[in-house]
Parts: sequence; C-alpha cells; structure tokens
Amino acid sequence: MDLSQLTDRINSALATLQYGQQPVALYEPIRYIMALGGKRIRPLLTLLGAHIFTDDLEPALKPALATEVFHNFTLLHDDLMDQAPLRRGKATVHEKWNPNVAILSGDVMLVRAYELFLGVQAELLAYVLGRFSQTAAEVCEGQQWDMNFETETDVSIQQYLDMIRLKTAVLLGFALELGALLGGASRADADHLRQFGVGIGVAFQLRDDLLDVYGDAATFGKRVGGDIVSDKKTYLLLMAQAQATNTQRAVLGQHIGQPVIDPEAKVQAIRAIYNELEIRPQTEALINEYFLDALQHLERVAAPESRKKPLHQLALQLLEREQ
Amino acid sequence: MDLSQLTDRINSALATLQYGQQPVALYEPIRYIMALGGKRIRPLLTLLGAHIFTDDLEPALKPALATEVFHNFTLLHDDLMDQAPLRRGKATVHEKWNPNVAILSGDVMLVRAYELFLGVQAELLAYVLGRFSQTAAEVCEGQQWDMNFETETDVSIQQYLDMIRLKTAVLLGFALELGALLGGASRADADHLRQFGVGIGVAFQLRDDLLDVYGDAATFGKRVGGDIVSDKKTYLLLMAQAQATNTQRAVLGQHIGQPVIDPEAKVQAIRAIYNELEIRPQTEALINEYFLDALQHLERVAAPESRKKPLHQLALQLLEREQ
Repeated sequence: MDLSQLTDRINSALATLQYGQQPVALYEPIRYIMALGGKRIRPLLTLLGAHIFTDDLEPALKPALATEVFHNFTLLHDDLMDQAPLRRGKATVHEKWNPNVAILSGDVMLVRAYELFLGVQAELLAYVLGRFSQTAAEVCEGQQWDMNFETETDVSIQQYLDMIRLKTAVLLGFALELGALLGGASRADADHLRQFGVGIGVAFQLRDDLLDVYGDAATFGKRVGGDIVSDKKTYLLLMAQAQATNTQRAVLGQHIGQPVIDPEAKVQAIRAIYNELEIRPQTEALINEYFLDALQHLERVAAPESRKKPLHQLALQLLEREQ
Repeated sequence: MDLSQLTDRINSALATLQYGQQPVALYEPIRYIMALGGKRIRPLLTLLGAHIFTDDLEPALKPALATEVFHNFTLLHDDLMDQAPLRRGKATVHEKWNPNVAILSGDVMLVRAYELFLGVQAELLAYVLGRFSQTAAEVCEGQQWDMNFETETDVSIQQYLDMIRLKTAVLLGFALELGALLGGASRADADHLRQFGVGIGVAFQLRDDLLDVYGDAATFGKRVGGDIVSDKKTYLLLMAQAQATNTQRAVLGQHIGQPVIDPEAKVQAIRAIYNELEIRPQTEALINEYFLDALQHLERVAAPESRKKPLHQLALQLLEREQ
C-alpha cells in the first residue's frame, strides 16, 4: 500500500465526479472547493480500512469519495458561519460568490455525498447510510457546540473533548468503519476500526491545539498563536484556566475577552503561563493516551498485522510521531 | 380514503419524530418549524399514491414523512436566503434564532429526511434514494434559478416554467412516485404518477401566481398584489411583458424596477394591463392544459378508477376546481 499512489487514485476519481451543470452559480462553487485540494485523509482512511480485508478496493472508491464531499460540504458551511475569508489560501465560497450561493451549493453537496453511497450492495446500504447519517448529525452537533462555546464563559474540559470528538473525530472514525464494512469486515471489527479512527481524530485535534502555540510557523501553515489571539477555548486554555494560581488567573483575565492591543505580547504572556503550568507535557500525555487507546482497538481487529500496518503508519504520520 | 383522517395520521406520526436533543440550539428550530403546521400535501400524496396499489399504508408512512421534513428544510433555508421575516405568521428560524442556527439546523433536517427512508425494503432503497436525491438537487436548482431571476432582466416564459417545475413541482411528483413504489407499483406506473404530480404542481404554482393578482384577500392568506409590488417575475408579468403594446410597455417601465411610492396604485396599474391583455384567461388556459395533461398520466396508471379517485379529488381541491 503506497499512500501517495492511493491518494493519486482518490484525486483522479474525484476529478471525474459530476456534480451538475446548470445553474452555474449552484455547481461551480462545488467544483471550486473540491479543487482546492487537501490531504484527502478521509477517503484514504476508507480505502486503508477496506484493504485490511480485501485486495479489491474498487467497490469502496465511490463511497470513499462521499466522505470527502461531505467533509468539504461542512467546510463550505462552516466557513460561512465563521465568516472565514480564506480556505487553503483562496477566497471562501461565500466571499467569492455570496452567502446564499454558499448555503445552496453546500446543500447540494450533501445530496451528492449521499448519492455516492448508492452503489453499495443492497444488503449493506441501509446500515451504511444509517451510520453515515448519525455521523453527519454528530458533525453538525460538534459545530453547534463550537459556536456555542464562543460566547459561553464556563466550558468544561470534558465538554471541549466531546466537541472535538463530534466536530472532527467521528467522521474519521466513520471513514474507517465504512471501508471495513465494504471490505467485508464483521461489524465488531468495523466498530474497532471506527473507535481507532475516533481516538486518532481526537489526538489529531489536540495536536493541532498544541501546534497553534508551540508549532514552527514555517511548517504549521497557520499563524502561530492564532487561537490565543482570538481567545479560542482550546484544551490548552481550558487546562490553564483550571490550574492557574491567583496571580496567573489575574494575568489571564487581563487578556481573555479584552481588546487586543499587542497580539505578540498577548501570545507571549499566555504562553508563559502555559509553560509555568506545564500545559504542553500534560497535553502530550493526553494525546498519547488517546493514541495508545486507539492502537488497542486496531490490535483487536481480526486481521494479519501486515494488513493493518499502513493504517498504523498513517496514524503515526498524522500525529507526526517517530513510532 | 378520508383525506382528513389521513392528514391526522400524518400529523400524529410527525409528532412522534425525534430529531435530537443536544445542543438545543440545533434541534429546537427543527421542532419549531415542523410544528408550524401546513397542509402536509407531500406525505398525503405519498400515502394516496401507495393506496392505489395496497391497503397497507404502514410501510409508506415514515418515507412519507421524509418528504415533509425535506420540504420544511427547503423552507428553512429559503426563508434565510430570501430574508423572509415570517413563515405561517410566525417568526422565521433565522429571525427567532440567528442565520447560523438556520444554516446548521437545516443541514441536520436534510440528514434526518434521508434517515426516514432507511426502513424501505433493501431491494428498493437505492432506487428510491436515487430518485429522492435527484429530486432534492432539482429543488435546489429551482431555488437558484429563482434567485438568479431576481436580478436578470431577460427571463423567458419557458425559463420561468422550468424554474417552478424544479422549485415546486418535482417534489410533488416524487412524493407520488415514492408512494407508488412503496405500494408495489411497476416503475412505469410510478413514473406516470410522478408526471401526474409534476403537472399538478406546475398548475398549482400558476394558480398561486394568479391568486396573487386576482385572489380574494380574505381567503388567499397573503396580501393580494404582493408579487406585483415586489416586481416578482411571475407567469403573468412575463406574459404581459411579451404581449404589451408600446403604450403598455411604457406604463410597465414606469413601475417595474422603480421605487414604489404608492403600492396600491402600482397594483391597479399593472392589473389594468393584465386585464387589457387578457392575461387571466390565458393563464387559466395554461393551468387547464397542465391539469388535463396530468390527468392523462393518472388515467394510464394500471389500477381501478376507484383507487385513483381520492388522488383525482385532491388534485381538484388543490386547484380549487369544481370538477
């Protein structure tokens, strides 16, 4: 399993998808956002999940694309809700066209995502679509919690972990479960792969929180400290708020929810508190916990180690771990 | 087939639907819009379509509700796009909550609509969902055309008829086709019922255009002349523009696209031109044409007349015809 060959295969298949022609304002934004690229992690997970159980990946290809179309649908609507100007360095759909086009193109993308499942064998289709629908609703729930948290002052660490699980991790879990089911896995094995994917997904999001504060600006791809400047309630901030001394709490209070005069000074002040409280090693420990728990689910899947190895490797890559 | 009993059965079933609990801001708007009421025409069509072929309507009930949930999803997103303040006399979701809540609650409604199909027997499911998905995409296309037409100066009558077919009629057609398929009809019969529904749907929308100008304010339920005041490119206006003399064209030009100083005077002036051009009888003739064409499709359905009669009656009711 060469991951870059598999990604090429996914991108070739994505390039052949027909979303529709007329009206242009409905379908052009779909082609636009799908062409912005990305790592295509979700279809990759589906194909790797299938490959554990079968060498014939063809039946899994279109449903694999469904997870990518769905993911991009959520990006399109989330960018509108978050009023984000850019996506992968290009104008977002609501900026390039307008908000109504973003709403309606997104709606059609969700329909097209469902259509991509319809070639699934009849005896699996209802189960697969039931799992997909539950996942899709959970992703919406995660986005709603995320928006709620922006204005809530009292977000618990457990609430935050639940939010990132719903918003990000469950779709990674479903992508793997889908591949397993299409590859002929038992439902028990498919569920272990799902739980593996959910665990990796939460760990991945926690690592993203960490990189925002401690990442190398050159390789991170986003402005370091962006979460801090915007008062985003990340795992790091919630942990710091929970563990702060009175002095540290006063410093946090001077910055959080206040107008930002000097962003760099704000980032330095908050990062200093994170350092004093050892938030970084605590976060790394939690990432490790999720990772090891996820691996246990992968181990329980009834398949030879050699078939599971590419997935293990991808998880390591996603978390940028050596082993 | 007592239509009001059938509607009661639909409303009882709708009342038991569970959309989800948390976060409240995601699910409460769904319960809100579904409780605003309405004639429940689409599920009624599904059950009447099924009843042509079977006495057991139970398997058709949940899929019938799917068409109603989908319809309300389109209302929710359309109201946001159109910035409509009211729906059935109550605040729209984006007004009562906010635009982001309207986007995300709508998204989950589309997911829940798909879920309501998942009990359909395995050998029919992919076909039914393929037809539903095509219909759903067409409804979005219709809404996009409708929005495009607001700023286009040169909309043809054929383009307008295509738009109302997509935005309104195809879903009525699908609701009937769905019922037929679930009742055990052949695909040919199901398709005749679909075409019957599409024809009735276009006729129904044309009648709505007519009522806006010639309706009785007391029974119409909307302000008479609303389309005229807002320059909506209805069938009546497009016909008048196509047939106007130079003098009439000048009067139209004084009103269309101009600031409205005296709405009542505008309605009277445009209605006078409609009267001079005999737009009303021309529109009635086209409605009749769609109605008779639709009836031909109903006649071709291979079932006893007695089974088709309730559907025929409902179509007459919808078009408020004596026979």
